Amino acid sequence: MATILTLAGDGIGPEIMTQAIDVLNAVNDKFALNLTLESGLIGGVAIDATGEPLPDETLARARAADAVLLGAVGGPKWDGIERSKRPERGLLKIRGELGLFANLRVAKLYPQLANASSIKPEIISGLDLLIVRELTGGIYFGEPRGIRTLDNGEQQGYNTMVYSTSEIQRIGKVAFELAKTRAAATGGAAKVCSVDKANVLEVTELWKQTMIEMQQAEYSDVALSHMYADNACMQLIKDPKQFDVMVTGNMFGDILSDEAAMLTGSIGMLPSASLDASGKGMYEPCHGSAPDIAGQDKANPLATILSVAMMLRYTFKQEMAAQAIEQAVSDVLDDGLRTLDILDPSEAGLTQVGCQQMGQAVLAKL
Amino acid sequence: MATILTLAGDGIGPEIMTQAIDVLNAVNDKFALNLTLESGLIGGVAIDATGEPLPDETLARARAADAVLLGAVGGPKWDGIERSKRPERGLLKIRGELGLFANLRVAKLYPQLANASSIKPEIISGLDLLIVRELTGGIYFGEPRGIRTLDNGEQQGYNTMVYSTSEIQRIGKVAFELAKTRAAATGGAAKVCSVDKANVLEVTELWKQTMIEMQQAEYSDVALSHMYADNACMQLIKDPKQFDVMVTGNMFGDILSDEAAMLTGSIGMLPSASLDASGKGMYEPCHGSAPDIAGQDKANPLATILSVAMMLRYTFKQEMAAQAIEQAVSDVLDDGLRTLDILDPSEAGLTQVGCQQMGQAVLAKL
Ligand SMILES: CC(C)[C@H](C(=O)O)[C@@H](O)C(=O)O
Ligand SMILES: CC(C)[C@H](C(=O)O)[C@@H](O)C(=O)O
Repeated sequence: MATILTLAGDGIGPEIMTQAIDVLNAVNDKFALNLTLESGLIGGVAIDATGEPLPDETLARARAADAVLLGAVGGPKWDGIERSKRPERGLLKIRGELGLFANLRVAKLYPQLANASSIKPEIISGLDLLIVRELTGGIYFGEPRGIRTLDNGEQQGYNTMVYSTSEIQRIGKVAFELAKTRAAATGGAAKVCSVDKANVLEVTELWKQTMIEMQQAEYSDVALSHMYADNACMQLIKDPKQFDVMVTGNMFGDILSDEAAMLTGSIGMLPSASLDASGKGMYEPCHGSAPDIAGQDKANPLATILSVAMMLRYTFKQEMAAQAIEQAVSDVLDDGLRTLDILDPSEAGLTQVGCQQMGQAVLAKL
Repeated sequence: MATILTLAGDGIGPEIMTQAIDVLNAVNDKFALNLTLESGLIGGVAIDATGEPLPDETLARARAADAVLLGAVGGPKWDGIERSKRPERGLLKIRGELGLFANLRVAKLYPQLANASSIKPEIISGLDLLIVRELTGGIYFGEPRGIRTLDNGEQQGYNTMVYSTSEIQRIGKVAFELAKTRAAATGGAAKVCSVDKANVLEVTELWKQTMIEMQQAEYSDVALSHMYADNACMQLIKDPKQFDVMVTGNMFGDILSDEAAMLTGSIGMLPSASLDASGKGMYEPCHGSAPDIAGQDKANPLATILSVAMMLRYTFKQEMAAQAIEQAVSDVLDDGLRTLDILDPSEAGLTQVGCQQMGQAVLAKL
């Protein structure tokens, strides 16, 4: 028996989580997975209830669980709160405390949604790229950090971008291994593009050097290339299909994974996984808490439902159950069901549905 | 009499500079500008000649000049060189030493080139946005920085992202003022979007706070919005025309300005200005040194030629001469002349030209 902790969070979090839980319960029965679900508080709702964005109880239960399914955190309601208590800190803290250093974000184009993108179809058709983002180091976690008053009376803000060889190696290994797995599945060549700013930042010079050494020592079967972050941001627009697996640090990964997601035009479709060294993980949609549409039954639950599929695949090794969910999602898209974010008004034969109707349609396919 | 120092640099630098100098000489005569041109060494060619990417002599002459026109620096030839001596360091150093803290990068779509982009035409038609990037602070200049050996024997790389209130204020002022100038010119509303990662990084929290205070105290006639860097990277793809002026720090500006340039599909067309507090500046194309096509007469000289126009506008206040150049560039595009980078093979009536032919065609229009 395994336990999953669900953390719905803020904004549209509760709505999308309700649908994802229904799907999870359905596959749990169908494939006799023997999974137990618990729920807990994180983010703004946790601040409202306990004063802390990540209460100790949530952290303890997350540690005890085999996997965590997260909705989304944050919203304008908590903007005024003291820095160390904001919803986002809860997210950063759970990543750090659980050692979820490997963030996997897939930017995949669903053929049914090819028109949703602002990119020309020929540039993105068939796009399926994986961004491996280091998630518990770099400038988002580095010390020293803060805001201080200088001798001349003005304020100064500072943060530290820092990586050690072993931190780079463990994320590099994830990227190289996944490139091999993907290549084996498609019959293609394994390739990794490591993104840095080694021409300016020493910390990323060490990153690049470490990747080169790993490739030479252990992964000569994987083609390794390097790209500066500014150029990578351009190349993703110009020709995203040149990439298969990209690996980079926390901040560049934050930016590039969002950019890659937007290339597909349907960030409401994209799941992510954050894994520790043993494969235990937290799974969540790539999109945020969308406070502007919260509680209106407008949100797209598919990214969260697809996050359940990722969880079954990576943490529970239940490939068949994962594929069943992915197939069900593809089927409802084939049926023409669309939430507002993925609705192309110029396309005939589509039916606009709300969050609940979309979730239940997936359920019906299972 | 005023002096301009030209620094051709590496790769395609010399070719594009030759054309830009021809154009500069032509407007100098036509508008009786009384400008004197000098040339100097920077980047890889300077390393080869003197061992330094920015020789003291170049720096001294740049200080003495009223403006600098730069080609491009860097190339694989100098990749193996010790970190502090690489071509890019010459560029960073001249920016720092001359106090060129305000980098202006325009992402403008030329209607003649609408098809060159990988973005759908309706998303980018009429695009004309200005990115104001802080250029002499932030993580590209912050101390401490380096690579050290830890007690356990592994290496650790580190850099510091740092901004003080006054650094933020001076770049904020540039952005607010330019937003007002642009609004006055178009009859539109003045608006600035400040990009940060204030939900995670303290240094950018100070950035955001300082922008808010400036707007309240001095720029209540400018609409100020804020966006996280990851979201900004997405929004640039989804709906770039929502922006007019964006202002951000050195690293986010590096990434976002390249992304914005690529939206137009013709980075070979985009000039930039790097200004100090007095308006003295260095002008350069947004693109790099393109070593792969260097010396083949394939490069697009238009971004460098348009950088001359920016120089005449911002440093020498010669609006008529600036517009004459911009008009000449537009005219050659109307005539169907295209270098390889902006050639759309599916469009009828275009003539592919080399770097020299393109430059001379602009000259002929003047
Ligand atoms: C909410 C924020 C702290 C978070 C991050 O920057 O990591 C988010 O942008 C993400 O990418 O998951
Ligand atoms: C070459 C490099 C140092 C430079 C930078 O990062 O500033 C370049 O990318 C730019 O944007 O001008």
